[in-house]
Amino acid sequence: MALTDLPSKHENSQEDGKEPVPPGHTNQQRARACFLKGVSYFSGDMEVFGKWMEKQFILLQLLDWVLRGAAQVMFVNNPLSGLIIFAGLILQNYWWALNGFVGTLFATISALILQQNRGAIAAGLYGYNGILVGLLMAVFSNAGDWYWWLLLPNIFMSMMCPIVSSALGSINSRWDLPVFTLPFNILVCLHMVATGHYNNHFSQVLIQPRSELPNITWAEIDVAKLFMSVPVGVGQVYGCDNPWTGGIFIFSLFISSPLTCIHAVLGSAVGMVSGLALAAPFGDIYFGLWGYNCVLACIAIGGMFYALTWQVHLLAITCAFFCAYLGSAIANLMSTFGLPACTWPFCLSALTFLLLTTGTNRIFKLPLAKVTYPEKNLRFFWKLKKQEKMEEDEKKKKEREEQRKTIEDEVILNEKEKLRREYERVEEGRRASLASEGKNNKTHVEDQQIEIEQQGPEEEEIRCNNLHEDRPAENV
Amino acid sequence: MALTDLPSKHENSQEDGKEPVPPGHTNQQRARACFLKGVSYFSGDMEVFGKWMEKQFILLQLLDWVLRGAAQVMFVNNPLSGLIIFAGLILQNYWWALNGFVGTLFATISALILQQNRGAIAAGLYGYNGILVGLLMAVFSNAGDWYWWLLLPNIFMSMMCPIVSSALGSINSRWDLPVFTLPFNILVCLHMVATGHYNNHFSQVLIQPRSELPNITWAEIDVAKLFMSVPVGVGQVYGCDNPWTGGIFIFSLFISSPLTCIHAVLGSAVGMVSGLALAAPFGDIYFGLWGYNCVLACIAIGGMFYALTWQVHLLAITCAFFCAYLGSAIANLMSTFGLPACTWPFCLSALTFLLLTTGTNRIFKLPLAKVTYPEKNLRFFWKLKKQEKMEEDEKKKKEREEQRKTIEDEVILNEKEKLRREYERVEEGRRASLASEGKNNKTHVEDQQIEIEQQGPEEEEIRCNNLHEDRPAENV
Amino acid sequence: MALTDLPSKHENSQEDGKEPVPPGHTNQQRARACFLKGVSYFSGDMEVFGKWMEKQFILLQLLDWVLRGAAQVMFVNNPLSGLIIFAGLILQNYWWALNGFVGTLFATISALILQQNRGAIAAGLYGYNGILVGLLMAVFSNAGDWYWWLLLPNIFMSMMCPIVSSALGSINSRWDLPVFTLPFNILVCLHMVATGHYNNHFSQVLIQPRSELPNITWAEIDVAKLFMSVPVGVGQVYGCDNPWTGGIFIFSLFISSPLTCIHAVLGSAVGMVSGLALAAPFGDIYFGLWGYNCVLACIAIGGMFYALTWQVHLLAITCAFFCAYLGSAIANLMSTFGLPACTWPFCLSALTFLLLTTGTNRIFKLPLAKVTYPEKNLRFFWKLKKQEKMEEDEKKKKEREEQRKTIEDEVILNEKEKLRREYERVEEGRRASLASEGKNNKTHVEDQQIEIEQQGPEEEEIRCNNLHEDRPAENV
Repeated sequence: MALTDLPSKHENSQEDGKEPVPPGHTNQQRARACFLKGVSYFSGDMEVFGKWMEKQFILLQLLDWVLRGAAQVMFVNNPLSGLIIFAGLILQNYWWALNGFVGTLFATISALILQQNRGAIAAGLYGYNGILVGLLMAVFSNAGDWYWWLLLPNIFMSMMCPIVSSALGSINSRWDLPVFTLPFNILVCLHMVATGHYNNHFSQVLIQPRSELPNITWAEIDVAKLFMSVPVGVGQVYGCDNPWTGGIFIFSLFISSPLTCIHAVLGSAVGMVSGLALAAPFGDIYFGLWGYNCVLACIAIGGMFYALTWQVHLLAITCAFFCAYLGSAIANLMSTFGLPACTWPFCLSALTFLLLTTGTNRIFKLPLAKVTYPEKNLRFFWKLKKQEKMEEDEKKKKEREEQRKTIEDEVILNEKEKLRREYERVEEGRRASLASEGKNNKTHVEDQQIEIEQQGPEEEEIRCNNLHEDRPAENV
Repeated sequence: MALTDLPSKHENSQEDGKEPVPPGHTNQQRARACFLKGVSYFSGDMEVFGKWMEKQFILLQLLDWVLRGAAQVMFVNNPLSGLIIFAGLILQNYWWALNGFVGTLFATISALILQQNRGAIAAGLYGYNGILVGLLMAVFSNAGDWYWWLLLPNIFMSMMCPIVSSALGSINSRWDLPVFTLPFNILVCLHMVATGHYNNHFSQVLIQPRSELPNITWAEIDVAKLFMSVPVGVGQVYGCDNPWTGGIFIFSLFISSPLTCIHAVLGSAVGMVSGLALAAPFGDIYFGLWGYNCVLACIAIGGMFYALTWQVHLLAITCAFFCAYLGSAIANLMSTFGLPACTWPFCLSALTFLLLTTGTNRIFKLPLAKVTYPEKNLRFFWKLKKQEKMEEDEKKKKEREEQRKTIEDEVILNEKEKLRREYERVEEGRRASLASEGKNNKTHVEDQQIEIEQQGPEEEEIRCNNLHEDRPAENV
Repeated sequence: MALTDLPSKHENSQEDGKEPVPPGHTNQQRARACFLKGVSYFSGDMEVFGKWMEKQFILLQLLDWVLRGAAQVMFVNNPLSGLIIFAGLILQNYWWALNGFVGTLFATISALILQQNRGAIAAGLYGYNGILVGLLMAVFSNAGDWYWWLLLPNIFMSMMCPIVSSALGSINSRWDLPVFTLPFNILVCLHMVATGHYNNHFSQVLIQPRSELPNITWAEIDVAKLFMSVPVGVGQVYGCDNPWTGGIFIFSLFISSPLTCIHAVLGSAVGMVSGLALAAPFGDIYFGLWGYNCVLACIAIGGMFYALTWQVHLLAITCAFFCAYLGSAIANLMSTFGLPACTWPFCLSALTFLLLTTGTNRIFKLPLAKVTYPEKNLRFFWKLKKQEKMEEDEKKKKEREEQRKTIEDEVILNEKEKLRREYERVEEGRRASLASEGKNNKTHVEDQQIEIEQQGPEEEEIRCNNLHEDRPAENV
């Protein structure tokens, strides 16, 4: 978390203007600042690199987009992570890696042909379905590796990705929801069920529904394999069962966003536990089939589309458990048609949890256009909260001032009233005494009275004016 | 119908101010008024009780919400009905009743934790999915009664209810539609298909698709059982096959809203008839499987979400038939996955009929926020109609007045025009004669002319005033 | 294409006012104009006939609506096409044709009862689902022809069509999408799965999932049958496998809209090719099962809901390929439930492609209210484009003029400035000389000065006018 959280402080300090460098800072601090700056270049979404790329040759740009697309499967917009992920794929299987690359490439090209949003293409948002389509079509093909004909439906299906993405986007945008990997799910299931196991050209692996009680003996449980299932679960996001590949994927996540990485591991662990709770065959758990959907769901809810608070963290874990349950359900449903669960469980559970509306402001869904990566999302959320608080404070201040004003006005009125009454009392007293003095002085008295009466209001006015003149400074 | 319809008159009379009590009214009438007032305390949605509850201890409130939640399955917002329903459940099976209670309780608690709308929680709108989830998970469990582990998924699934409800609500609210029992359907199917029949922890009842012609001999039909299937159908809404339980449920509906009760029975009968028409095995019909969806659909359309008119009543019966058809279809579909139909048929058919738009104003869909219970909905509808009529009448009155005014204005103008022309004619004639008389009289004539001209308008005005006084009676 | 494209010219000429008939035009031209006018009466949507119909007896109107409804399956709003289609159906099978007619009739009547939009009813938009429901229920019935009881569910289901249409319309209208044949798909699948193969009253044809590798020997391919599969594919839109019936349908399309006809044939061909590519059993391809969805999808995208450009034409072909793929997938899925694919693949693929949003203005989706038939849609699109262009031109013109103006103003200001400076220089020089000359000449000088000052502006104006006359050519 420190890795990308600290650069943010660095950035904030830049925003605040010239940071007054404390004179006594040591070399160590200097080195640290240097290191953080270096880290900021290849962590997060590598914005600086992305800006630099914009001026490069189109083929180089395309490579950047493809790499970002490969990483976007895990919501990471980072070409370096994409490169590491491809390395992991090559470690797993050359042929799969090739199919994944072809898928990403053609999905991106198709998006360019269909003139989709350039920013979204550059962020790899049209590539991630392509890589999954390519990979999983290779994984589930019954024809074995290096069956070159497979590239044909691979290219067709990955070119359909932007069309399906755009169509689903038109629907989901009404609720400000992303399309997640729904286009991949739709297209791979479409290909698999269209050809099926009994096909002469593109035969699929045979998947059949469970028809007898699995033999689960708790004594036979292999704890090492169980722990290994956590990285394998992360690897299964790309259909890979090699734990090293899974480890490489975890590392690629850590580079870009440690918060994403933590939630990925957490999700995979939750999936494993759920598998044990629902009495799944151990083989499935070891193979990571219970983990990959939870990985994605936990990342999506835990900081990616919601701003990360403790409440959201708990929500993400709940979502991972729900996703595991749903995963088992969908796997059983789809097996009736000879289909794998793909990432349907993740999509459906994450969409459900994103549609949730609550009364608390600790669960804040980011506007889709503002989603980047958990750390940056958090900063956005904090900024927003700060702004809101300031506005609220100002409002309260104003209210308080207005209250004071009204109180003061009342005080002034009361003072006026008092003065008037006092004056009237004085007047009456005077009149009474005058009446006893006799009628000789009457004319004189009357003159005086008139004088006083004429004076009275003026005096009052003066007093009032004085009051008015004294106050303003306070009132403003 | 009389029970709650009459209190409404009572209420109306209160609105009109002090009702002049006829001097000669007998004791009978007094007793009746007293009775009606008493009825109004525990029929409908028990508003007075609900208001009183707001000031009570939270646990007591929670109990109120749980009872209302239990009754909300049938759209009844009444804790007394809820209590009776729980009694019916206990009559059926203790374990099921316990599971239902746990489900309602935890669904409501989960809604409180997630800070959902307090009014909706208090109306039991977050509990009814919970009771169904709890009940049906117990009903379809293969482990038999008192398998305590079942409470774990029960609690988890019922706590998911508010999340799924909120998510579906976000979607359905765009069309001002309720979520009905969709969260229950989703969650119970999810649990059942996730574990399935072949599971070591939570095994489900085995459900298989029909694979041979059912043996239906019309001679074997048991008319008594057929008639009994009507209350059993109502009972099956809560998964109960005991006709007495069904009868208790019907009674609980009658307490709150007789119109709801009538439509429930009607729906169940329609379902039974549909079952016979579509050649369903008699066993299924006797068991109420053809009834419960129609019960709910008929209630929902017949007065609950539409204001009850004769057209709406027919629509409700059509919907019940459609629902029965759909029920058979969905039951067959779901049996492929080893799932029961749950209340999917009701949800889908009712949503379809609520999405219907027609040109007639006799089919009036209430705004979702105004839905209470059929009798109150009707009053709302009538009030609205009255208001509309009054507004229309006023509008017409204004239009008529305006028309009269314009006609009058025209008449006045015409009169003026006539007078002017007459005057001009007279004038011309005079001038002609004057011209022949010579120039000596000229000054005199001009004086006269001015005199006439000054007189003219005055005369006209008088005439017009006369017109104004004469006309109105004719024009109105 | 010539048939309806030319009448459009004719129409345009009418819009332009009286066309000055060239004096030397031959009889041939006159005959041609006459022919085109005749064609315009029964091609397109037969607007003139429709207007004339409005004044006829209601039963005659109903017949018109039923015929239009029959043709609307292929998006054709033309009673003549409908009549020809019914002829084709009768050629195929009397019983099916009767069921289709009953379906259309009752769907239309139901829409009238439910007071749906009269314009939509008159365009046959409530009938096309009815004809398909009627036809396909007869086609898939296992009871054979002339099983009269079938008319009961037929009537019920076709009367449900407007309800389902209206409900789906409420949802789809949010994205300005049509409901296509979704109501038919829903209702026929509902009926088929509700009764199923094992039913005593309404047994359905047995459909089972493929469970072994089909035996495909490329040597056995029958090229004649393969080519025949193109018209058969068009026929299968109405569930007919007779190639002559398919041919008749193609002819009925040609009458109304040649563009529609071309895309129908193209779609059927694409479907056939896709079938070969995905290793489908030849029998299915010959039987037109790969064609009918592509026919509809290709028509819908190719000019019906998008304005036809080359880009849209390519999109339509892509959509047809996607639809064929999807068709195979859905057929396999549905066979698990004993259901045929109906036209689900068409609906889903066409909706996906209509939801597509692109940055190019060459793919223009028509507002749903403006959709008529491809040729008229094109004219609407061209008109819109022309208007846009004109507006843009005007805007540009204005901008250019404003630019010119500002430039001129600057020029004038500069000239004025120059003159003033020059004058000042002259003045100063003169003053200097005058100061030395003495005070005698002073009065004379002042007069001159005033003279010059008065002259100045005039001269400037003339210069400016010259500028105005010189510049325009440069600025444009």
